[in-house]
Amino acid sequence: MPLLKSENRSDEGPRGRRGGRTSRTASRRLPSFIGPAKPLSRTIPTYELLDEDDLLRLEEHSDWILDEIGVEIHDGEALDLFRQAGARVDGRQARFEPGLVRALCATAPPVFQMFGRNSTSDITVGGDSVVFVPAYGPPFVSDLEGGRRYATIVDFENFVKLTQLSPWMHHSGGTICEPVDLPVNKRHLDMVYAHLRYSTKPFMGSVTSVERAEDSLQMARICYGTDYLDNHCVIQGNINVNSPLVFDRVMVDSLKAYARANQGCVISPFILGGAMGPVTQPALVAQALAEAMVGIALTQLIRSGSPMVLGVFLTTMNLRTGAPTFGTPEANLATYAIGQLVRRLNLPLRAGGHLTSSKVLDAQAAQESGDTMLVGLQAGANFVLQAAGWLEGGLVIGYEKFVFDLDRCGSHSRMLTGLLVDDNTLAADAFREAGTGTSFLGVSHTMANFETANYQSDLADDTSFEQWSADGSLDSAHRANLRWKEMLANYHPPPFEQDVDEELRDFMDSKKASDEDRWY
Amino acid sequence: MPLLKSENRSDEGPRGRRGGRTSRTASRRLPSFIGPAKPLSRTIPTYELLDEDDLLRLEEHSDWILDEIGVEIHDGEALDLFRQAGARVDGRQARFEPGLVRALCATAPPVFQMFGRNSTSDITVGGDSVVFVPAYGPPFVSDLEGGRRYATIVDFENFVKLTQLSPWMHHSGGTICEPVDLPVNKRHLDMVYAHLRYSTKPFMGSVTSVERAEDSLQMARICYGTDYLDNHCVIQGNINVNSPLVFDRVMVDSLKAYARANQGCVISPFILGGAMGPVTQPALVAQALAEAMVGIALTQLIRSGSPMVLGVFLTTMNLRTGAPTFGTPEANLATYAIGQLVRRLNLPLRAGGHLTSSKVLDAQAAQESGDTMLVGLQAGANFVLQAAGWLEGGLVIGYEKFVFDLDRCGSHSRMLTGLLVDDNTLAADAFREAGTGTSFLGVSHTMANFETANYQSDLADDTSFEQWSADGSLDSAHRANLRWKEMLANYHPPPFEQDVDEELRDFMDSKKASDEDRWY
Repeated sequence: MPLLKSENRSDEGPRGRRGGRTSRTASRRLPSFIGPAKPLSRTIPTYELLDEDDLLRLEEHSDWILDEIGVEIHDGEALDLFRQAGARVDGRQARFEPGLVRALCATAPPVFQMFGRNSTSDITVGGDSVVFVPAYGPPFVSDLEGGRRYATIVDFENFVKLTQLSPWMHHSGGTICEPVDLPVNKRHLDMVYAHLRYSTKPFMGSVTSVERAEDSLQMARICYGTDYLDNHCVIQGNINVNSPLVFDRVMVDSLKAYARANQGCVISPFILGGAMGPVTQPALVAQALAEAMVGIALTQLIRSGSPMVLGVFLTTMNLRTGAPTFGTPEANLATYAIGQLVRRLNLPLRAGGHLTSSKVLDAQAAQESGDTMLVGLQAGANFVLQAAGWLEGGLVIGYEKFVFDLDRCGSHSRMLTGLLVDDNTLAADAFREAGTGTSFLGVSHTMANFETANYQSDLADDTSFEQWSADGSLDSAHRANLRWKEMLANYHPPPFEQDVDEELRDFMDSKKASDEDRWY
Repeated sequence: MPLLKSENRSDEGPRGRRGGRTSRTASRRLPSFIGPAKPLSRTIPTYELLDEDDLLRLEEHSDWILDEIGVEIHDGEALDLFRQAGARVDGRQARFEPGLVRALCATAPPVFQMFGRNSTSDITVGGDSVVFVPAYGPPFVSDLEGGRRYATIVDFENFVKLTQLSPWMHHSGGTICEPVDLPVNKRHLDMVYAHLRYSTKPFMGSVTSVERAEDSLQMARICYGTDYLDNHCVIQGNINVNSPLVFDRVMVDSLKAYARANQGCVISPFILGGAMGPVTQPALVAQALAEAMVGIALTQLIRSGSPMVLGVFLTTMNLRTGAPTFGTPEANLATYAIGQLVRRLNLPLRAGGHLTSSKVLDAQAAQESGDTMLVGLQAGANFVLQAAGWLEGGLVIGYEKFVFDLDRCGSHSRMLTGLLVDDNTLAADAFREAGTGTSFLGVSHTMANFETANYQSDLADDTSFEQWSADGSLDSAHRANLRWKEMLANYHPPPFEQDVDEELRDFMDSKKASDEDRWY
């Protein structure tokens, strides 16, 4: 059952959830880079790289992989469910007749809603909707003054706050960075708390063990209410397949936990061509499709109708050094192909993101990020994880990179709305008024349209060289350094019910007291 | 008559032109960023933004502009030719019945060849072919050590040499930068000489006065032979319309000179939305199409079949400051629309380029450049002027930016060849060999394909943080600084016949002696 907006939800909403369209910050006069999330709907066509013959061939190859090679699943329940559904199970290996896995995916909703702590934070996932989500996973953080260092819970909270502040981020993300100052077995509590407390946007919980996944779900229940959670998706698990063609125990456990709770998963094979899959992109595309479909199929066997996102995270390697590379032509072409195939499955697609292997916010970072993102959006991405902050192949989240990427998400938000051809935009009267050889600056049409005609970048500098020099000759990275500090200075936590806060803290305290700290 | 490769051209070619596939440099062992130009043919689909109704509406609006507003032409011969062709001429204003200008464009070839000084430098313009051409016009130059300064003829020659060295540049460009150390009325001679002497690739001559255009053509005749030039396109004029809707005397004179000599023009309205045209992009698109078609039509009235490129150079302004902005969502959307319209005209399209208003090679520069270029290529660009070097809205050519852009052109060259789905790329045997859960690094398919599977960037750094730090923590700009110096150190001038060289020098000396130096 698709989790579309429930009919009987009151404006007050469940506990911990505040209704209405305003928040404390929204009523103040704020710069353009701060504000409630702006819902984004694509009105431009997707890019169709491959023809029908090629697409059929890739689908058949996915089917062949599942039928002849199969997938290895380290979980008895999952193997049983697949056997009952018709798979041929041999030890941990499951093999599938052509078409079977695709058919099992059919109950996953093509479009679903996720709910935040107020109605302005609710989002739609799938269809024409596009959702930007921050970086996930970096153990390191960097900024211009502090350099590159291990991330802490303070960094984590800062990025939750920056995400909450941005009108271009629709989702609070998950492990925006790893707070490595906290014990490995307890940091998920503080991360989930930060998402609930400092953001109103939907978010992701822990997937690093079934207990941590259950803790994440339980904290969401404390905040949103147990009944509410059973039919409203507020939290997701980010599930990576252990490519090639392996679903390991931890990931399957977490996948099952989220699906059973009727919450979402983003299921993304992560494949470097030449390492976790063949070196040629068409093979990777077929493999990624096969792996992701098996993950989706499993969620549907656990709970039919649970809301899933089919992700892909394919990229290239430098085949001389083994280093992953991003925004490359081969990775981009593969993304277009995956987009076409996932549309034929009618599932929400994760693709894109601002990915780079650069160490700093330089030209390489912007180029690799920019191409990955533009291509992902043209490929039809609905859910764009890693949309802000990534550096160094995901090892680092950069403060400057984060706000640079936010501005890019704003620009793409305009791009996705397309070119409206109508009487106003054709501007016949402007031509009549200006005639030939004169400026359009003063004509009525320009005056009436100039404030809304263009997306105005928050960070790009288009002043004269003289003005730019007088302002300190700051490059993008140095301007971005000023920006993230200005944003954090403008942050005010959203309202939060005190009893919910206390219950969350009690839960965390009791969990933390119940086990030793572990650092590995 | 399309200027396709002549049947009776011998390998020796005409004077000044060397036949054969090798050159002095090609036989030595060189790094991947140095080599003969690699011809580039698009095999991926263009991106179709607008539907048929919108396209018809834009075409009708172009027709309406030409019929009701008309264009202002500061040239009696051009007005006479248009009157004879059916236009309504009133003073300097020419107006056209719907469809007339489009019909006059029909004799311009959809595809033509340009010829260089050896057969490896010949290029195809139009159809599926894509040609990268360096920056045009900047009076300033910059590099990391020297900073921003006026360009000189030494800089000009350096960029001709860098262009000649790059496998990704197909054309030597024109005024790659303005050698402002030379008199305004004589510098065209040294620029044309540099293109002829230091490059083997096709190039652009002067358009700043009819005399300078004729000098450029004459120097091409000295090098290639008068008869050869009459039916082989080796030189082009870069003609900007004086938007909105004005063809000024200088530009029309130059356009006529190139067309009469059966050489090419690239005719590009340069329109900032809100200044030289309305602030809304659909109106700009219709205006640009109208202006460019009038220019093409005029070339065909001067010499039917002369080889032309329809260019567009539309972008946005910061409407608070009046500064031009590049790579913006609105400009990109307009580019897609223009691409669709020019395909319906069946003419070679100029679009794309690595454009930015950034002052330095930073993240902004890469992002704005990258989006403009990728979008232009997806829009179907055949002739990509400004493909390397641009900074600061075209006021500056940057040495580091130049080589960064070269690498991007290499990457896009791979992208444009698309994704081949066949038995090898589907790699069934690799899946059989690797099975589940093991690395593909050692499988036979990987070994057989890893050298050719991916474009390997010349400049991107994908090493570990530790390695990168040990190498000096160089960002893109600093790596590019090393690169352009390495390239120039590898430059060797192509062979050049001594008698041609002497005749060119005599011609320049006599022209220089015939007039005072002028500096404005």
